[in-house]
Amino acid sequence: MLIECVPNVSEGRRPEIIAAMSDAIRRVPGARLLDVSSDPSHNRSVFTLAGDATAVESAVLALAGRAVADIDLRTHRGEHPRLGAVDVVPFIPIEGATMADCVALAKKVGAAIAERHGVPIYLYEDASANPARKNLEDIRRGEFEGLAAKMATPGWAPDFGPSTPHPSAGATVVGARMPLIAYNINLATDRLDVAKKIAAAIRHSSGGYRYVKAMGVALEDRGIVQVSMNLTNFEKTPIFRVFETVKHEAARYGVAILESEIVGLVPSAALTGAAEFYLQLGRFSQDQILETRLRRAD
Amino acid sequence: MLIECVPNVSEGRRPEIIAAMSDAIRRVPGARLLDVSSDPSHNRSVFTLAGDATAVESAVLALAGRAVADIDLRTHRGEHPRLGAVDVVPFIPIEGATMADCVALAKKVGAAIAERHGVPIYLYEDASANPARKNLEDIRRGEFEGLAAKMATPGWAPDFGPSTPHPSAGATVVGARMPLIAYNINLATDRLDVAKKIAAAIRHSSGGYRYVKAMGVALEDRGIVQVSMNLTNFEKTPIFRVFETVKHEAARYGVAILESEIVGLVPSAALTGAAEFYLQLGRFSQDQILETRLRRAD
Repeated sequence: MLIECVPNVSEGRRPEIIAAMSDAIRRVPGARLLDVSSDPSHNRSVFTLAGDATAVESAVLALAGRAVADIDLRTHRGEHPRLGAVDVVPFIPIEGATMADCVALAKKVGAAIAERHGVPIYLYEDASANPARKNLEDIRRGEFEGLAAKMATPGWAPDFGPSTPHPSAGATVVGARMPLIAYNINLATDRLDVAKKIAAAIRHSSGGYRYVKAMGVALEDRGIVQVSMNLTNFEKTPIFRVFETVKHEAARYGVAILESEIVGLVPSAALTGAAEFYLQLGRFSQDQILETRLRRAD
Repeated sequence: MLIECVPNVSEGRRPEIIAAMSDAIRRVPGARLLDVSSDPSHNRSVFTLAGDATAVESAVLALAGRAVADIDLRTHRGEHPRLGAVDVVPFIPIEGATMADCVALAKKVGAAIAERHGVPIYLYEDASANPARKNLEDIRRGEFEGLAAKMATPGWAPDFGPSTPHPSAGATVVGARMPLIAYNINLATDRLDVAKKIAAAIRHSSGGYRYVKAMGVALEDRGIVQVSMNLTNFEKTPIFRVFETVKHEAARYGVAILESEIVGLVPSAALTGAAEFYLQLGRFSQDQILETRLRRAD
């Protein structure tokens, strides 16, 4: 069983604190730290780790212990919105694990952080049964500075932990979601209106695909425009369908696709799914991929 | 470093002998046995294993020890052509290993089999510097029964070992090659002439792509025809280019592609290469694939 976890922590400037958090994860047997990205202007670090449920649980609790001890939101400044020292903890099914496994893990880890550190926990995405508290942006609105007032408002009691913020560590949002793919399509034009119209056509919020967030942006140094997207469930809204739709919509304006790009990590299945579609592969199984077989034999 | 090895052994009928050979591989630390396929009518078994150079070397030598002890070509019958008890041993670079690494490993293992068991060794494919002895079919022509006469012919002294066949174990062909992909495209027609014409258009032997072997066959139970292929170097002749060429050639006869299929294992890079092509991915690296990163972190 393989579960990915991508904790976002409100510290992106002090290297020794970031290193101590990385070490806390690495010391957990079976937890593999795949990536650490720190952004000083956001004052935020994103850890990508993977392992079985037990390893990932221990790693997140070890990370939370360090973060709550070392980070004080009362003096924290940065461009990125945040609610707590450990800001967001999503669990993501990768292989041999279901979304239900990740929801169960999110609740277990959320309850443990609340009990050990007295930090209130909000569940989100698939781990939340409350429609008003599925979306991360809705939960985080008001940020740390507005948290005490928000928690006193009806409907905003936390899922675990105290009914007031932790003085220095705020609150933590814990949940389960599918892998997120950051996917951009560059158009062979400088017409920003075309990128914006295509983004509106494909994103969920304005009538497009259920699991697409999109906006049109200008890449001014290159003299082109881009449809910049997050694909939030590549199984239900696959990357190839989004690509083909953008291509057709662009053709409507006499515009061609210059290239597309995946930013950061992508699950193998998202790409092999595209190969299956375009090559019209029948009866194909992920077990036929040599590397999948190798992982099974480990 | 990850090297794959696919030894073909002339035993496909006695389960206890096949199990003993599998066990010999499994007992080697670091050698992972991914698949064993035995064909009684061919009287042949194909082992797929992987590991670093040291583990793969030890596993092949352990397998050869059992095969030479347990298999007697003088009484062996089967539909598949064969030269020896251990018939063919290809080494295949998968990750962090080059073709040169696999050529060096083939020579080392070939020399060791010759020395330990007195079996003559012919190098083939990339491990052979002799153009007349690169192709497996050329080396195997005449089979075990014609081997003594062939070895006495000028130009057929082995690369390692004695100048006459091993009495019961014949000779072994050892080499290095790229992963082989068994790839079929089914056409929405029962016209065998169309499949044969397309196969002729795309295969190397009649003017097609350098790394494609192809033939047209009828799938009589389904009432359709198939272009049946081996892709012998997916980096230089990629799967998507073959697919698109078959599609264009079929359109010439008013025929559509029904589906394609990959038989057996395929390296992840062959499929992600197709995704890169069709999605016009720029600046993409295999390191962006989550599962690749996980293997690195092991």
